[in-house]
Amino acid sequence: MSKFFSKKYAALTPYTPGEQPKEREYVKLNTNESPFPPPPSVVEAAAFEAGKLQLYSDPELLSLLEEAANCFGVKRSEIIATNGSDEVLEFAFMAFCDKKHPIVFPDVTYGFYSVFASLHAIPYDTIPLKEDFSVDYRDYVGIGKNIVIANPNAPTGLCLSLSEVEEIVKSNPKNVVIIDEAYVDFGGESCVPLIRKYDNLLVTQTFSKSRSLAGARLGLGFANEKLIADLNTLRYSTNPYNVNRMTMAAGVAALKEKRYYTAKCKEIAENRAYTAEELKKLGFEVLDSKANFLFAKTEKVSGETLYKRLKDKGVLVRHLRGERTEEYNRITIGTKEQMQIFLAKVKEVLEEEK
Amino acid sequence: MSKFFSKKYAALTPYTPGEQPKEREYVKLNTNESPFPPPPSVVEAAAFEAGKLQLYSDPELLSLLEEAANCFGVKRSEIIATNGSDEVLEFAFMAFCDKKHPIVFPDVTYGFYSVFASLHAIPYDTIPLKEDFSVDYRDYVGIGKNIVIANPNAPTGLCLSLSEVEEIVKSNPKNVVIIDEAYVDFGGESCVPLIRKYDNLLVTQTFSKSRSLAGARLGLGFANEKLIADLNTLRYSTNPYNVNRMTMAAGVAALKEKRYYTAKCKEIAENRAYTAEELKKLGFEVLDSKANFLFAKTEKVSGETLYKRLKDKGVLVRHLRGERTEEYNRITIGTKEQMQIFLAKVKEVLEEEK
Repeated sequence: MSKFFSKKYAALTPYTPGEQPKEREYVKLNTNESPFPPPPSVVEAAAFEAGKLQLYSDPELLSLLEEAANCFGVKRSEIIATNGSDEVLEFAFMAFCDKKHPIVFPDVTYGFYSVFASLHAIPYDTIPLKEDFSVDYRDYVGIGKNIVIANPNAPTGLCLSLSEVEEIVKSNPKNVVIIDEAYVDFGGESCVPLIRKYDNLLVTQTFSKSRSLAGARLGLGFANEKLIADLNTLRYSTNPYNVNRMTMAAGVAALKEKRYYTAKCKEIAENRAYTAEELKKLGFEVLDSKANFLFAKTEKVSGETLYKRLKDKGVLVRHLRGERTEEYNRITIGTKEQMQIFLAKVKEVLEEEK
Repeated sequence: MSKFFSKKYAALTPYTPGEQPKEREYVKLNTNESPFPPPPSVVEAAAFEAGKLQLYSDPELLSLLEEAANCFGVKRSEIIATNGSDEVLEFAFMAFCDKKHPIVFPDVTYGFYSVFASLHAIPYDTIPLKEDFSVDYRDYVGIGKNIVIANPNAPTGLCLSLSEVEEIVKSNPKNVVIIDEAYVDFGGESCVPLIRKYDNLLVTQTFSKSRSLAGARLGLGFANEKLIADLNTLRYSTNPYNVNRMTMAAGVAALKEKRYYTAKCKEIAENRAYTAEELKKLGFEVLDSKANFLFAKTEKVSGETLYKRLKDKGVLVRHLRGERTEEYNRITIGTKEQMQIFLAKVKEVLEEEK
């Protein structure tokens, strides 16, 4: 820390992204990327824009918002696009939370929520997940504070139903409820349609997971047009050209490839079921994930040891510290072949640690 | 504004980017883009990455920082890369300014500085440019506040010398001095080498202008490694994958194309000299710009009228409101052909308005 760094941030602990190792090739199941490349139309659209990079991107992101409006059955003015969904989440924390408007979220969830709150000096509370790691929606009904919930939640993969989400939104009309649907396409139920019914709901989605575009950085936010206008006030006050030309083109093309992505999500759901079943046979406890990852533990070997031994063997999974999570690992669902290698290496570790 | 929008931002006026019109083709001289596409190696590098978008970019941005370190003769740890240089500028406002550490900048300069200050509740003062629109460096010597100066300044294009910049940095050892070198490659002198000598200097550059990559979004910050570490604390607390794969690859390739870009900057400087000369013949007052734009006015027609009439004729320049600037227009330097069209249209307007 330099002597110039503002005291505001003295206690700030940044987010720790998953490892992106460069020293060797891994079966990489640690950052919830898709194992499938984007379809050729998306690659071509992005590559085509590379020839026009001397020109700024459209700050209104018109073609992208039009395509998204079309796809999701909402109006253009009900959508914002950002440099990954982290950016729209940060804008939402800034826009709707402050010293008088704290935010709550589950104790075990996406690590960035507490970072955004600390960064912007927003008071926050965490509400413990139930013993089985599920969110009890009743904990949030009528709570009278801003709320952010990842649905499916990370790293558990567990879901709230649409009617449970609606209860939360309906019962907190004076507060903004943010539903982070980063993983919704793998088995959850989107609440985007509810934005027409409730003026206090913001739904965020990302192109990083189900749409195979983690490396392009694109997120969307859906809400009542007044909330979107507030978020755009912040976008225009930070980085009006936040989404670059290539990513915008990739996003437009991706929204037209519903069939491709639906098939890939189905394949991932099948690989998830297969992997969960095999892990259970090996004695693992596996949560009922609706996301593109599994959260699993076994009494045979500690979470940290399993993570380390798998890494030695060329398989990377995500181990999260913290009292409630340290016995688990979060395993991204890859191709069937990747999951077979993963399972074989898990078997080896269990043998060796016996 | 929604009823949920934090009162913190009630008075915030976002930045207004230059028009990016879609309704017709213009000779577009309004956003200081390069008229030249990036070289083929850059286009190919970006396009190649489009096939790997399912994977996150490297949050450490290693290959980019290595190439930049190489190019600029500094260490990797003395550089940060961001989603356009606006992002590193915002991080710097956040990191080094607060209620107790205000910032000063010229009254006529890049419009984003006051927006960043307002957004983050940072007190700021503006120091009037001299009558001739130049920055008097003595106004900043020993001022004891954080400072940001665009050098060359926008929209004037006027420069401080390296020794003047050094005087400012040296005389304010307890404050951070930010030198925004967005336009330096068109005729200014970079102060990047001074970061080794002073621990309170941050220099920012962009790939949007001289490197023909406005649509890719890439900026760099250079400073003592402690300042860079502070900025990275904020980067990892907002968006660790802030630079996407394609842009990172384009940036690496661009840094290897020094000869191409030097030639293009020279061509722009020649077109600037030609355009300035012709405008003077038409009775314009033209500031001595070292950037890829000219700032010019004439008594024959108001700044706003000239802007509007040129737009009617298919030529887009930038007209900035504000007491000191409203008689002027900022004209981006394009190709010789574009400047000839611009000059022909200016002549027409002067004839018609006589």
